[in-house]
Amino acid sequence: MASSKDKNYTYIPKGYEVPDDVDYFHYTSNNTIYGTEIRKDPDVKAPIIADMSSDIFTRPIDVAKYDLIYGGAQKNLAPSGVTFVIVKDEALGHVDRVIPTMLDYRTHVKKGSMFNTPPVLPIYSALQTLKYYKSLGGVRAIEKIDMAKADCLYSAIDSSRMFVATVPSHEDRSIMNVCFVMKPEYKELEQSFIEFATERGMVGIKGHRDVGGFRASLYNALPMESVEALVACMNEFESKH
Amino acid sequence: MASSKDKNYTYIPKGYEVPDDVDYFHYTSNNTIYGTEIRKDPDVKAPIIADMSSDIFTRPIDVAKYDLIYGGAQKNLAPSGVTFVIVKDEALGHVDRVIPTMLDYRTHVKKGSMFNTPPVLPIYSALQTLKYYKSLGGVRAIEKIDMAKADCLYSAIDSSRMFVATVPSHEDRSIMNVCFVMKPEYKELEQSFIEFATERGMVGIKGHRDVGGFRASLYNALPMESVEALVACMNEFESKH
Repeated sequence: MASSKDKNYTYIPKGYEVPDDVDYFHYTSNNTIYGTEIRKDPDVKAPIIADMSSDIFTRPIDVAKYDLIYGGAQKNLAPSGVTFVIVKDEALGHVDRVIPTMLDYRTHVKKGSMFNTPPVLPIYSALQTLKYYKSLGGVRAIEKIDMAKADCLYSAIDSSRMFVATVPSHEDRSIMNVCFVMKPEYKELEQSFIEFATERGMVGIKGHRDVGGFRASLYNALPMESVEALVACMNEFESKH
Repeated sequence: MASSKDKNYTYIPKGYEVPDDVDYFHYTSNNTIYGTEIRKDPDVKAPIIADMSSDIFTRPIDVAKYDLIYGGAQKNLAPSGVTFVIVKDEALGHVDRVIPTMLDYRTHVKKGSMFNTPPVLPIYSALQTLKYYKSLGGVRAIEKIDMAKADCLYSAIDSSRMFVATVPSHEDRSIMNVCFVMKPEYKELEQSFIEFATERGMVGIKGHRDVGGFRASLYNALPMESVEALVACMNEFESKH
């Protein structure tokens, strides 16, 4: 067993062993609340199941290593309302208990994803997003863009006298959700900064209630210009206090 | 028990009794395949559950008579991807077997329909549709429009020497899905008519494979002009043969 509860989940546990004979190893590759991310395909022998809702299309994935990859589309693929599933044939049909027809992936495989009336708008949007990703040069090109965006913001935080990242280890930091807080001596300025940023058109940067502080989500749709605007905003705020 | 299987479901069974002590009486108010519709709230003592996917917002409904009304939005409310549920508090929580969290309506009631990430596009479209319906004068006004559209098409069919409605009884006819076929002496012209209509921009009028012939869906988004165009097309075809 491995957990980072001791430090409010601000790092990815290391050195744990996954027994070869467990039914499966499930993990969520990116933690949107705490801003941690596992960017390397896990090296375990048990079947791997991954929720990649919030960081799919940010790096090449060795899909053959996974029995099942799934996620909601609403972060990096399409508006909310559709999900994606990549599943190995041999991973299907291992549930012993009775499950509803619509929750059995085999139903959707058999019906070519047309068991239910498909949500056409998000599916069409997903198609357009995938074409756009291809035109950019695919996930390798997107990874470079995402890394540059994250580096820009983390560098600004790390060199700030006022802000500090909640995840210290660089390798554990999410490139999608950057969580940071005010240093203890500036703690009382947190609300002021949120208002300061809001006035400048930057909304939704309040951190999750379990972490506090700030969270900037850098999903693929967010351009570098927006990251630079946030950094400029932070610098301006810092120079005023 | 009541069924209209004897005549390929082309009428609504009458005179059946629903025992007062059954758990519930479920019905689907409009049959999109066979073109039949129940437009009167049922007069039974058992709890009533209705799937109104394909004819909600076509008449005033005495919702208090129902324990549960549900449906997909994609006919008369919004693009596919969202569903609507109207449920009485006391109808909830009567399922004995274990059901998945997301399939228990109480989950969604408790979370204000935000248990899952909501599909924003279809929900927003639903809002716009409802505002539009209100601006038209609500369901009473819409019912008049829908009735006029259905009357226009059924009258053309009934007075035709070539076409015949599959549902003989006027009171059983769906005002949303008008099903009709060629009379036996013109049967071989069915495919020609579909091509004839397609050339004139009328698509999707091929009937369901269980009925054959033609099916014109007159959902609320379809204007009277489209019905008139179909009638003109039928008349033109008839005058040529």
